[in-house]
Amino acid sequence: MRESIFLIGAGNVGYHLGRHLVDRGCRVTGVFSRSIEKAQALSELTGIPHCHTFNEIDPTADLYLLAVSDAAIAPAARSLYQMGIRDKLLAHTSGATPSSVLRPYSTRYGVFYPLQTFSRERVLDFSKIPLCIQANGKEDEALLFHLGERLSEAVYRIDDQQRAVLHVAAVFVNNFTNHLFQAGWDILERESLSFDLLRPLIEETAAKVLAYRPSDMQTGPAVRGDQATVDRHLEYLQEQPQLQELYRLLTRHINPDLEV
Amino acid sequence: MRESIFLIGAGNVGYHLGRHLVDRGCRVTGVFSRSIEKAQALSELTGIPHCHTFNEIDPTADLYLLAVSDAAIAPAARSLYQMGIRDKLLAHTSGATPSSVLRPYSTRYGVFYPLQTFSRERVLDFSKIPLCIQANGKEDEALLFHLGERLSEAVYRIDDQQRAVLHVAAVFVNNFTNHLFQAGWDILERESLSFDLLRPLIEETAAKVLAYRPSDMQTGPAVRGDQATVDRHLEYLQEQPQLQELYRLLTRHINPDLEV
Repeated sequence: MRESIFLIGAGNVGYHLGRHLVDRGCRVTGVFSRSIEKAQALSELTGIPHCHTFNEIDPTADLYLLAVSDAAIAPAARSLYQMGIRDKLLAHTSGATPSSVLRPYSTRYGVFYPLQTFSRERVLDFSKIPLCIQANGKEDEALLFHLGERLSEAVYRIDDQQRAVLHVAAVFVNNFTNHLFQAGWDILERESLSFDLLRPLIEETAAKVLAYRPSDMQTGPAVRGDQATVDRHLEYLQEQPQLQELYRLLTRHINPDLEV
Repeated sequence: MRESIFLIGAGNVGYHLGRHLVDRGCRVTGVFSRSIEKAQALSELTGIPHCHTFNEIDPTADLYLLAVSDAAIAPAARSLYQMGIRDKLLAHTSGATPSSVLRPYSTRYGVFYPLQTFSRERVLDFSKIPLCIQANGKEDEALLFHLGERLSEAVYRIDDQQRAVLHVAAVFVNNFTNHLFQAGWDILERESLSFDLLRPLIEETAAKVLAYRPSDMQTGPAVRGDQATVDRHLEYLQEQPQLQELYRLLTRHINPDLEV
């Protein structure tokens, strides 16, 4: 018999996990969310029954997937424990939180971390999303691994330390990159130029590193050592000191020989 | 009769421009490149005759497209001038160089700037590439605009000042972004983790801003004000001071309330 899964959380991660688990034929017996709207949205899409108070949670599931914010992981696990759910497998879905925060609340715990940025508006091909799996026992690790394989072609065994490192790297390539996109937006907005001018460039910048090492794809005035262009850019950015500061630091990192 | 085009330069931009001009039925009567290999590569693909010395250049073309590095634009225009090519339309393809560098060498000059990052390995859908057009006369502007429309659905009239601004913004969203991708690579490499773990995230990060404003898509510990995660990340980066410096600055810019 296949394991039954109870989903805690119907935010961005919970929503996408829930719908893809159901799509792939997994047994999701319920979803808990403090937000009635969020739980209903997932319920309506998937048919998963939803509830909003902890004592409505089905205590007989085999796996409790905690798709909640980092700060809510331990409190959610504690609530399950207080309900008497103590020998069941708990797994959170976070990149930033060690699995050990679950240890006080069950002898069986692990992580089921999809390394992707989720937003409700976008439907993702889950089969391409790297799933980082970890558990404190071999059997539970196998259970999470096989569950991962139902969703994705890219399932990895990743321990707490590795996942913490992945999360730092993800901040660079996702959060910080997105902030640079906004810098581009801000620069164009001052001149009433459309961000559409940059969108194909952004798309191609990302597409290039899907097949190559980023440093092999590095172009632009900094890596060329084009001091004249760098000077012109810094002068232009004089009135936007934050962007100028960012330009200086990134240029210096790309090419320490430049004067910035 | 359609205008005849002579292409100066067979580097990344020249190569892609040459092949797409021919694909779209434009009359490209020759390509000049100092590099025999590069000129031959384009010739073999397109049938455009190639040459390697300036005095072999056809002096009867209607338009000379200077797809050369920024530093080589003025010298190339000067060489054409010295050959007697003086009343023909010259247009360079650079984002960083003002059109006025061509003024000493012809009464008719302009810019034909495809806002994209080109590499030989990747075939691009030219119809989506923004083409930034400028000329010092209305007729020549119309000529370049219509030529642009043969290649792309996104042709814009962009003056020198606007193009300079676009180029600054392009450095942020392309060069600097790519450098952050390499930072992600470096972080994973230290722990022998595969960059493949980050590639779907990179793809989705870019895909999101194709439809949305980047700041609306901002996620992560900085924008959440998650000081504990930021502290953990900074501690982890202690041994990589350059990355730590970058992390501090970007985090401070995303959220000035955090202590970094």
